[in-house]
Amino acid sequence: MKNREAEQNKQATFNKGKSREKDPLPSWNNGQAKQTIIEFIKKVTDPGNAQFVAMEDRIAVFDNDGTLWTEQPYYSQMAFLLDRIDDLALQHPKWKKEQPFKALLQRDLKNALSGGLKAISEMIMATHAGMTTSDFDKLIKAWISKALHPRFEKLYSECVFLPMLQVLEYFKSSGFRNYIVSGGGIDFIRPWSKAIYGIPPSQVIGSSIKTQYKIVDGQPQLWRLPEINFIDDEEGKPVGIFANIGQQPIAAFGNSDGDIQMLEWVTSREPSLGMIIKHDDALREWSYTKDTLLGKLDHALVMASDKNWIITSMKNDWRTIFSFMD
Amino acid sequence: MKNREAEQNKQATFNKGKSREKDPLPSWNNGQAKQTIIEFIKKVTDPGNAQFVAMEDRIAVFDNDGTLWTEQPYYSQMAFLLDRIDDLALQHPKWKKEQPFKALLQRDLKNALSGGLKAISEMIMATHAGMTTSDFDKLIKAWISKALHPRFEKLYSECVFLPMLQVLEYFKSSGFRNYIVSGGGIDFIRPWSKAIYGIPPSQVIGSSIKTQYKIVDGQPQLWRLPEINFIDDEEGKPVGIFANIGQQPIAAFGNSDGDIQMLEWVTSREPSLGMIIKHDDALREWSYTKDTLLGKLDHALVMASDKNWIITSMKNDWRTIFSFMD
Repeated sequence: MKNREAEQNKQATFNKGKSREKDPLPSWNNGQAKQTIIEFIKKVTDPGNAQFVAMEDRIAVFDNDGTLWTEQPYYSQMAFLLDRIDDLALQHPKWKKEQPFKALLQRDLKNALSGGLKAISEMIMATHAGMTTSDFDKLIKAWISKALHPRFEKLYSECVFLPMLQVLEYFKSSGFRNYIVSGGGIDFIRPWSKAIYGIPPSQVIGSSIKTQYKIVDGQPQLWRLPEINFIDDEEGKPVGIFANIGQQPIAAFGNSDGDIQMLEWVTSREPSLGMIIKHDDALREWSYTKDTLLGKLDHALVMASDKNWIITSMKNDWRTIFSFMD
Repeated sequence: MKNREAEQNKQATFNKGKSREKDPLPSWNNGQAKQTIIEFIKKVTDPGNAQFVAMEDRIAVFDNDGTLWTEQPYYSQMAFLLDRIDDLALQHPKWKKEQPFKALLQRDLKNALSGGLKAISEMIMATHAGMTTSDFDKLIKAWISKALHPRFEKLYSECVFLPMLQVLEYFKSSGFRNYIVSGGGIDFIRPWSKAIYGIPPSQVIGSSIKTQYKIVDGQPQLWRLPEINFIDDEEGKPVGIFANIGQQPIAAFGNSDGDIQMLEWVTSREPSLGMIIKHDDALREWSYTKDTLLGKLDHALVMASDKNWIITSMKNDWRTIFSFMD
């Protein structure tokens, strides 16, 4: 009986080991990118490894647009903005003649964005401010539940990268706290981040406009003011991360030059993991590195080998891109 | 055998119930304050209750100075500031003649603070800025490990209110996320909040100065700039909470007029709990309501009955105040 029990225990341990070895990243092809992620998770979660990291310090940061979901032909927040411009145009007949609104109504993004930060600011204030945070939340939830991606004709929530959902789940089940760190608006992402990525609102960091506490219709509310509060991009990313978390993450995923400082900061210590998603799959998604409407990736790619950042090729490293293609 | 098993199960269930009923707040005297806390926790965690709250929405916010630990004879951050002024005075011989530094060196706080926000800003910038966030973290950790409270001659970390530590633990074990929401500096609190309150850095919200990402001695760092970023007091508290969490808490604890807006916002929905700690125990701690160096409590106390906020009397509701008195 003793022997039998011992054998059972052995088997149980073995089975436990087997189930642990189940491929955590089934939508990734075998290759350096996948292997690096798995080895990183193994070493930081193994108490016997010199690079073991305590659970409270296991923090991973993920850019959103282009890293967790598609950012082409333009950011989803721009799609929301365009839809909202259309909705509001009836109340603003002058927009037909005024830039950047005229160009937006004509879907001429290049022209609309040619006004630089001033034009972008005007677009955002006209569409994102002048209401309570609860009303904005409702607006975003309504939009994300029905808006379709122009190329794939799927909900935006379906245009997330399946391999990255697996990375989020793998990190989370390995004791990590996953944070979104986006140049996009924090209050645009929070209403759906839990449902789409399993990331709660408190783990979303992004750009923001100012809010003001005031009583609206007898109820205390936060009112969205037409004034930029914080730009969570480039140098702003490490600043935003530290302001929100108070700790330095040990893993960072990005896809553009706006992620360089975040990657650089996170990978300045060991152990750490830095990864760049390279959009090189025109057939299944898009292929672009530079001079897009969205900014550049040139510099990040040039820096990668020097900084030991892993480049993930969407074409070669991802077996599937979207779940609707699976 | 069947009957015996059934009996055991019954007993186990009973025991489980009993152990649940163990007094979660042993340092609180029986009374309305204690009862209200316990009833609140019971209803929001009971799936059968109409006021049940899902775990992800169980958020409680706590002011720090005067709510979780003593704020007399002055804020602990002021004690840090005074110690640091002394340390830096050697490098700044002019301070002996210049306000507010002259008054600070003489421990004449009333005079030092008479210069208003400008003087306070100067004191903070001289002592809290011009270094990396890591160096500031080290400075605070070193200070908190040895600085003694002037009246009790105990470490500041021992001058926490034992009844409130029990509230923190009770909320946490009931599935709440506890956040500190302080008018004090976020980076002053984060280095020790986990050790003292069990609250990780990411759950600390406070006032802040701006930081800048830059390379210092070849290492990416965040540099503390001599510029106010955010004042987390009064109207700033709801703003800071929403910016950090993206959700509206359901319980708030405060002790001064700086907490009014936070209490008002949190208790504008049901279910919710709002509580004010009233300092009315000169013997064991301090007794003050108004015209102190630290601001006022008048208005919050007047509003309490109207808003259904519970007033906790330190004298009557707390069996013990500090663990060193127990």
